[in-house]
Amino acid sequence: MDTLHSKNWLHLSRIVRFGETDSAGVIHFYQLFRWCHESWEESLAKYGLNASDIFPSLLNKDNEPLIALPIVHCKADFLKPLKTGDHIQIELSPIKIAVGSFQVETKFKCDNETVAQGLVRHQAINSQTRLSCELSTEINSWLEASSL
Amino acid sequence: MDTLHSKNWLHLSRIVRFGETDSAGVIHFYQLFRWCHESWEESLAKYGLNASDIFPSLLNKDNEPLIALPIVHCKADFLKPLKTGDHIQIELSPIKIAVGSFQVETKFKCDNETVAQGLVRHQAINSQTRLSCELSTEINSWLEASSL
Amino acid sequence: MDTLHSKNWLHLSRIVRFGETDSAGVIHFYQLFRWCHESWEESLAKYGLNASDIFPSLLNKDNEPLIALPIVHCKADFLKPLKTGDHIQIELSPIKIAVGSFQVETKFKCDNETVAQGLVRHQAINSQTRLSCELSTEINSWLEASSL
Amino acid sequence: MDTLHSKNWLHLSRIVRFGETDSAGVIHFYQLFRWCHESWEESLAKYGLNASDIFPSLLNKDNEPLIALPIVHCKADFLKPLKTGDHIQIELSPIKIAVGSFQVETKFKCDNETVAQGLVRHQAINSQTRLSCELSTEINSWLEASSL
Repeated sequence: MDTLHSKNWLHLSRIVRFGETDSAGVIHFYQLFRWCHESWEESLAKYGLNASDIFPSLLNKDNEPLIALPIVHCKADFLKPLKTGDHIQIELSPIKIAVGSFQVETKFKCDNETVAQGLVRHQAINSQTRLSCELSTEINSWLEASSL
Repeated sequence: MDTLHSKNWLHLSRIVRFGETDSAGVIHFYQLFRWCHESWEESLAKYGLNASDIFPSLLNKDNEPLIALPIVHCKADFLKPLKTGDHIQIELSPIKIAVGSFQVETKFKCDNETVAQGLVRHQAINSQTRLSCELSTEINSWLEASSL
Repeated sequence: MDTLHSKNWLHLSRIVRFGETDSAGVIHFYQLFRWCHESWEESLAKYGLNASDIFPSLLNKDNEPLIALPIVHCKADFLKPLKTGDHIQIELSPIKIAVGSFQVETKFKCDNETVAQGLVRHQAINSQTRLSCELSTEINSWLEASSL
Repeated sequence: MDTLHSKNWLHLSRIVRFGETDSAGVIHFYQLFRWCHESWEESLAKYGLNASDIFPSLLNKDNEPLIALPIVHCKADFLKPLKTGDHIQIELSPIKIAVGSFQVETKFKCDNETVAQGLVRHQAINSQTRLSCELSTEINSWLEASSL
């Protein structure tokens, strides 16, 4: 069985854009965290979850998700420079850490070589009280399916 | 009377940062709109207004501003390249267009030469109904003081 | 003949991401210009051009494009709010303005309704002298094919 | 002796801007790394260094810094939410790690409480060969003065 296709929500790609570089000619470092977060959003959508059930917004006030997922920690390592037009392969490895927290490790490859990796850790909180709480059914489902 | 000092909330400055450039070596164009918006925010604060009375946020849900100020139009002209470390002088010219709208023209100078200019137009809307409405007392006060 | 498929490099799409919104719950205005520029880059690539032939970089110093394409003017109109997860259809309309300049009008639609539009104008310059010059063969080719 | 004033290049401040928040109402996480980098740039300038001696640019090709300082690692912890208009105090703690590398720990405080912290590690490389090298005299001077 081809795991590349069986968990297609963990295997993404993108292309480096001009506005992501700085005058040194390579991507400006914190753009990698944007890639991490956008890859996570794309992964949730490809798995089948709705953005409006996960991400709070004033426009959605009457139906706000009860659980918010603020980021409490993140880190990244940069191994090779990336420039405009480079094709990047992205691999996500989500794991549950506790009843109310999980993290996503994201590996970025170019020509089959790892060029950078990022890690983003989320803590579930009740969006009203802002106290820690358990992860939602949706996020738990995505985490379990991702780590099978 | 020194107009530079009498309306100090319309005369700002900033320094070009490395992450604002792209691999052509100059600021990436849309960063100018960030400068326009941040200059407007700085102007409101220097004039004496509170950010929490102007800018909506889920964290401030019980005390949300009744009036939101979405941007309906903006434009910019780029005259000279800007690079990391350049010192920029900023001049804001706000004007009221109608009972519910205003725009801010922002001129950016380097060594007393205009290097770029931006314009951002806002329309007041009721934050619940999202229908057009009149500008708030606070914004009207800032507009009047700015155009005296 | 299906024009959607015959000029596929002018018909793109993207999904609104969480980090592109602000605390008012909708996309922060200048992100639209990032979409315009990234759509233009995607269009050039889908048409068959190489990023390294168009976009300068210090990493590519010995083979730098002779012609740079700085943006001299841009503008945008915002018609409807956009929130995280919205699916956006993108239509590009590039036109040549003069021997050394062109602009790209970009229309953004959601559920077949225009929600925003942007326009970005470029001026060709010699990357060494920084004086105005003619557009490159590559850009002229893309412009001609796009306006047939 | 007042250390706050004696090393003023390590004590900075900024105000949270609307465009730095996301629809959850707080700063979008990776903006913190922009703050880290911009604080570092401001620190170098306040200490007396020129941006053009540190940061490479195609516009500066004939006088390019011989040493580039790419970021090889970074991390951040987020302790409290930050919203538009919050006043942030910033404290930088730079340390040299090896002959060719250093890191800057940056603490962000609001109302005297630590709300977030970031760490960014740089490796000096020869900008032509891209091989590891020693830090420049300028950076060494700033590091020594900062850790006295």
